[in-house]
Amino acid sequence: MSQVLFQQLVPLLVKCKDCEERRGSVRVSIELQSLSNPVHRKDLVIRLTDDTDPFFLYNLVISEEDFQSLKLQQGLLVDFLSFPQKFIDLLQQCMQEHVKETPRFLLQLTSSAALLDNSPVFLNVVETNPFKHLIHLSLKLLPGNDVEIKKFLAGCLKCSKEEKLSLTKSLDDVTRQLHITQE
Amino acid sequence: MSQVLFQQLVPLLVKCKDCEERRGSVRVSIELQSLSNPVHRKDLVIRLTDDTDPFFLYNLVISEEDFQSLKLQQGLLVDFLSFPQKFIDLLQQCMQEHVKETPRFLLQLTSSAALLDNSPVFLNVVETNPFKHLIHLSLKLLPGNDVEIKKFLAGCLKCSKEEKLSLTKSLDDVTRQLHITQE
Repeated sequence: MSQVLFQQLVPLLVKCKDCEERRGSVRVSIELQSLSNPVHRKDLVIRLTDDTDPFFLYNLVISEEDFQSLKLQQGLLVDFLSFPQKFIDLLQQCMQEHVKETPRFLLQLTSSAALLDNSPVFLNVVETNPFKHLIHLSLKLLPGNDVEIKKFLAGCLKCSKEEKLSLTKSLDDVTRQLHITQE
Repeated sequence: MSQVLFQQLVPLLVKCKDCEERRGSVRVSIELQSLSNPVHRKDLVIRLTDDTDPFFLYNLVISEEDFQSLKLQQGLLVDFLSFPQKFIDLLQQCMQEHVKETPRFLLQLTSSAALLDNSPVFLNVVETNPFKHLIHLSLKLLPGNDVEIKKFLAGCLKCSKEEKLSLTKSLDDVTRQLHITQE
């Protein structure tokens, strides 16, 4: 079972090898997956996708144990279950600041290689104050392999087909109403 | 460059290991692909997919040279460029006969393993006369690997999104007309 906590197109700054720093946007999804097999556990899944590039997929799965090392490593003060909302707050801060000329909060996507080069990327929430760049959070995401991309695309296709079906029904309804009204 | 010669849902009989013979249908696509690199050549691509199962994909790519062995092996009397239309004629004959109680022409999909088990399948056009089963054509198709399925799904998603966009536009148009008419 999976609970979608956040799924939005988020503007960010892309920095990767052999490409100029550029503004872009990615769809950030945050899901809480409940697994009951073999033991009852929850995983936090963070996924980056690009609506214009079907093969762009980066994932990070954080279990409760993983979170303990992330917490230690980045000096976080929240627990596993409060973390998603704090992360969402940071993302929303970045989205609000994005329209400003000198945004205080900025989301960065950085890679030491070219994007889609099968290398990990870092998603950083950076605050810029007059003194320095403060990294509030830095998450390492791994590129999806062919099997993961295949499954992700099958899911997108299912949604798209359902939306098409619903649009077709609405169009039929409205067309019928129009004909009745015109008679 | 690719030219779609045929793309339809075709009823057939499925015979595979550990499953009872059953009636089903697959989408059969026949495309002529023109490649100009490294040399100018044409490939005939035959593809089986299942609208209800995104991971069902079987392919056969026949180059002009491949066709010569297929021709010899199956005793065909047509050349490479006339072959696709003859194959389409056979498929249409199967589609017409399908509604009959005892169809004379039947399309069969057979596999010595379970379907989607990473094993090849055979697509056979079989004529049943009072004397025997006559195999008009038997094509061996290979299951798509993850990369091929990924590319196929990306293509489907692109089409589905375009259709959604066009439906949304039509719905907007008709809704606007309805409002004008109702005023």
